[in-house]
Amino acid sequence: MTAVTINAQRLLADLHQLRSIGQCGKGVVRLAFTEEDMAARYWLKERFSEAGLSADIDGIGNVIGYSGNSGKALLMGSHSDTQPQGGWLDGAYGVIAALEVARTLRENPATAHLAVDVASWMDEEHTYHGFLGCQGFLGMLEDKVLEEKSYLTGKTLKEAINTSGLSGRPHRYQPDRYIGYLEAHIEQGPRLELAKKQIGVVSGIVGCRNFDVHFYGQMNHAGSTPMNMRRDAAMTLIHFGYQLDTLFKEATGEYTVWTIGRFEAFPGAASVVPEKAVMRVQFRDTSQSKLEQFEQILHQLSHSISEQFNVGIELERQPVTQPMKMDEGFVSKMADTAEKSMPGNWMMLPSAAVHDACMFAKVMPSAMLFVPSIGGISHSFSEDTDESNLVVGCQVLAETAVRLLAEQ
Amino acid sequence: MTAVTINAQRLLADLHQLRSIGQCGKGVVRLAFTEEDMAARYWLKERFSEAGLSADIDGIGNVIGYSGNSGKALLMGSHSDTQPQGGWLDGAYGVIAALEVARTLRENPATAHLAVDVASWMDEEHTYHGFLGCQGFLGMLEDKVLEEKSYLTGKTLKEAINTSGLSGRPHRYQPDRYIGYLEAHIEQGPRLELAKKQIGVVSGIVGCRNFDVHFYGQMNHAGSTPMNMRRDAAMTLIHFGYQLDTLFKEATGEYTVWTIGRFEAFPGAASVVPEKAVMRVQFRDTSQSKLEQFEQILHQLSHSISEQFNVGIELERQPVTQPMKMDEGFVSKMADTAEKSMPGNWMMLPSAAVHDACMFAKVMPSAMLFVPSIGGISHSFSEDTDESNLVVGCQVLAETAVRLLAEQ
Repeated sequence: MTAVTINAQRLLADLHQLRSIGQCGKGVVRLAFTEEDMAARYWLKERFSEAGLSADIDGIGNVIGYSGNSGKALLMGSHSDTQPQGGWLDGAYGVIAALEVARTLRENPATAHLAVDVASWMDEEHTYHGFLGCQGFLGMLEDKVLEEKSYLTGKTLKEAINTSGLSGRPHRYQPDRYIGYLEAHIEQGPRLELAKKQIGVVSGIVGCRNFDVHFYGQMNHAGSTPMNMRRDAAMTLIHFGYQLDTLFKEATGEYTVWTIGRFEAFPGAASVVPEKAVMRVQFRDTSQSKLEQFEQILHQLSHSISEQFNVGIELERQPVTQPMKMDEGFVSKMADTAEKSMPGNWMMLPSAAVHDACMFAKVMPSAMLFVPSIGGISHSFSEDTDESNLVVGCQVLAETAVRLLAEQ
Repeated sequence: MTAVTINAQRLLADLHQLRSIGQCGKGVVRLAFTEEDMAARYWLKERFSEAGLSADIDGIGNVIGYSGNSGKALLMGSHSDTQPQGGWLDGAYGVIAALEVARTLRENPATAHLAVDVASWMDEEHTYHGFLGCQGFLGMLEDKVLEEKSYLTGKTLKEAINTSGLSGRPHRYQPDRYIGYLEAHIEQGPRLELAKKQIGVVSGIVGCRNFDVHFYGQMNHAGSTPMNMRRDAAMTLIHFGYQLDTLFKEATGEYTVWTIGRFEAFPGAASVVPEKAVMRVQFRDTSQSKLEQFEQILHQLSHSISEQFNVGIELERQPVTQPMKMDEGFVSKMADTAEKSMPGNWMMLPSAAVHDACMFAKVMPSAMLFVPSIGGISHSFSEDTDESNLVVGCQVLAETAVRLLAEQ
């Protein structure tokens, strides 16, 4: 295997430089298409050019640096737009790590012939349309997304594109150019830290199902209606939620999570037995069959609770995200690289969040590398990662890239 | 005992006449101080005058008919204002039944010397200030209530009084004029109907306690936060509600009721573990010690659940209604009268709702008589009572009035 060594100081310096654009305390605010976001993209374009890439910002804000080398290329990147209260590493780490890999390979005579394209995709964080940039690059967008209005800015995507001076037309990828896609990212959860590992090799992305559960009871006076005469939508929801939590606990897999993110009772008065109630149930797992099992539990429970409480229960299924596996060949090479460079100090784990890499995984071999999040915290100004882990992650990423390109 | 017989036809005719003022389908809308409410009050004033009473509408809308007879008087009445979607009998029945009692006693030579004052109190239903009329009559109001704004009309009480052409000054009662207060009302619950009884003699009014229960957890990503790392405010609320329902069931008295009328989770997003949640817990009972016991359960539970889920729980106590007993002498005479006129066909029961009689019970002997509500339904256009029960109720009310006045 060809030895490559990244420039740790350069990696960290660029990460901190990018952080300074839109910085708020320890965090960063660079909502897609804002001045701060566009300034970061122009800054990135310069860095990509300095790295010898043919760099451009396309019509929807993707910054893409193309390698001039012949042969098939590896596409690497992430996003530089942030959440409304974003951390400094979410997305940014994957962009700068990809840039550092391209620079490292270029500077080493043994790897200078390898082709790495680097990108920062637009609006992964859904200010207007989540995964806009990579979907545009992959030809997955419909024209109607231009009319989608941001609840954060009140503007449509079309207006945001126009204001930013962009044309609206993304670069389209050439399918036969790439051997695949590679992305580094912070974990955004606590598993690596808890397991005391420096690197996570992502096995796949968890699937996610959402249901609105509606309860239909009967409105009554909360003083004069005896307990055994009630058809109380709110109390039924509470029993439903409790039983659901109990049954899900019994059936849980290693990575299963479930959340009741909201609930409400109607009319919502202190002295009225509620006639209606609604709650959102979400559950996630890497395994399709576990998701099926949880959905079965939900259906069975709604029948039994509805009968027990004489309250109508309706499950309203929301759009579904299927679990997705990363490419086996890519994953095994990344795992092997990690094991060689830090024996026992890495682990396989699924990603509980969706990333740009999920879009690429639909059309080309893809893989992701995680570094630990301190305290598991993300989507918060206090998001952080030990700098030593940022360095180690980029080093393993570089070695993986070399192997994937050399062994194609 | 002196035999009196009410005029059933006249009672029902007047009830239907009053219903026609502000009628909506089967129901009635006569919010306090509206044109419909005032029209009903002017109509009542005429009926009171026809019954030989010296009738007046006071400065806050109470319609009061004073008897000219000497000796102490019995005060009888209820309210003629309604809920936003009111039934035709809630309040109206007690006013017309009182009027019918006064007429019946006047027409019978054996009882014509007895003094009955009849009243329709203003705004029992809290369009501006619940129990406004009887509280004004009893000198219980503070001036600041004039500034209270109705969430239904957007006007202050002062504006409503002015618009109605009233002076704002209520009649004040003369304490030594009265032997006590008597009120008939529909039950507004299902107990009489379920027990197949025609008459309820009210033993007392249930007390009511309200708590806002606040939960303080930690916001997290609903995908990447493992179940055992969560401090989920919403899931804690659900477990709290379930345990509360279970413990309350074990501790319940014959008349205890409890209600969770509203709940909410924050920020309320499908993919965010909620950091805050709140719910309203209300419980009612006739017994002060039962209310204490329930409050104890609430406190103990908040400690144990807070510890179990590592989520802060705060109980915010809301204004309290104390349980109140009706006058023992009045109650026993009403019960005795009911038993004599319909053996076994009546029962004692507490009132689960607060009525004008509760204000009078604070200053003079008071009692209430209930007639059954079909299906237990009230505060609804479909509220109704068999006419035969309306008649029987008024008959027992008249006989009770005679005994209370004759045996004073």
